Amino acid sequence: MNYPSRLIEDAVTEISRLPGIGKKTALRLALHLLKRDEEQTLMLSEALLKMRTQTTYCRKCHNIADNELCNICSNSKRDTSIICVVVDTRDVLAIESTNQYRGLYHVLGGIISPLEGVGPADLQIDSLLTRVEQSGEDPVKEIILALSPTMEGDTTAFYLQKKLKATGVKISTIARGIPIGGDLEYADEITLGRSIVSRVAYD
Amino acid sequence: MNYPSRLIEDAVTEISRLPGIGKKTALRLALHLLKRDEEQTLMLSEALLKMRTQTTYCRKCHNIADNELCNICSNSKRDTSIICVVVDTRDVLAIESTNQYRGLYHVLGGIISPLEGVGPADLQIDSLLTRVEQSGEDPVKEIILALSPTMEGDTTAFYLQKKLKATGVKISTIARGIPIGGDLEYADEITLGRSIVSRVAYD
Repeated sequence: MNYPSRLIEDAVTEISRLPGIGKKTALRLALHLLKRDEEQTLMLSEALLKMRTQTTYCRKCHNIADNELCNICSNSKRDTSIICVVVDTRDVLAIESTNQYRGLYHVLGGIISPLEGVGPADLQIDSLLTRVEQSGEDPVKEIILALSPTMEGDTTAFYLQKKLKATGVKISTIARGIPIGGDLEYADEITLGRSIVSRVAYD
Repeated sequence: MNYPSRLIEDAVTEISRLPGIGKKTALRLALHLLKRDEEQTLMLSEALLKMRTQTTYCRKCHNIADNELCNICSNSKRDTSIICVVVDTRDVLAIESTNQYRGLYHVLGGIISPLEGVGPADLQIDSLLTRVEQSGEDPVKEIILALSPTMEGDTTAFYLQKKLKATGVKISTIARGIPIGGDLEYADEITLGRSIVSRVAYD
């Protein structure tokens, strides 16, 4: 397309690099911003930049955090004997919104996917093992694997089971009440809450 | 939702102010940017800011432009005796891509919509009249109204006809090959091109 201005073209190019946003939608968003107050674009631009450059991760569970420890890891009321393993922050938010879980989390930061070139070394798996092994006088008793029931999720769960076996910790997986092929974050709260309560222990 | 970090929350809030983007999509986009190189967010942020603060408009047709005159108005090969009136830049792009039109444009910058508080004074209507009246030795012979066949589009077309009547210029509208209620920008190129060629003169 022959954009009327290089500035618009640059903006459209950058916006359309976001997942699920094509050139037409990008142009619509750009023209929307042009019609609105300059303030709005300024705040959007600054919020994105700040988020990307200043966001830190919890040194314990690798969730996004404002401080060295996230709100959950630094909350003394949480049950430290149980860790729920998830792919990313969205899964933490989804499980938290069920109000069914009072333990801690471990955010892998992705899922094993040979097709996309993501291997175990790219994920926070070693740090999970270290967490379990070095839990000392406040031992981790159970690991819940809360991964989406997809090919990648199952592969990752299988790998984690193998790795964690030596530590002797109890490993469970959330109940497969979630439809196969569905995405964890889009499950409704009742289904997701139930799947935490009726988790199934690996034998 | 309890976002794990204020930075994420701010970013999600700002992203979800864009049309058609809800909180869940905004969070997905934010986490996507966090996973990618810092460079990408930097470029997106800068492109948006530059676009919003530096974009200028053609002083003749009010289309978005890099210079005082847009590429179309400054192109000596275009037919200056004919002006196509459109709502915004997307419509110019859509008509240009048909390769059926060699005249000039006039971008209204919106459409008359009492419900949204947009009146004739908010649009580039007076400047269109001035363009027609002051065309002098290189007179404008025809005005094509290329507005979406919706309530607002018809109202605007009706208002423009009334205003332009005194100038004696020929007024036409693009053929209604476009489905009623459809959006101009999503019409396919053949339909849109045909509608330019077989435009119907107002009697």
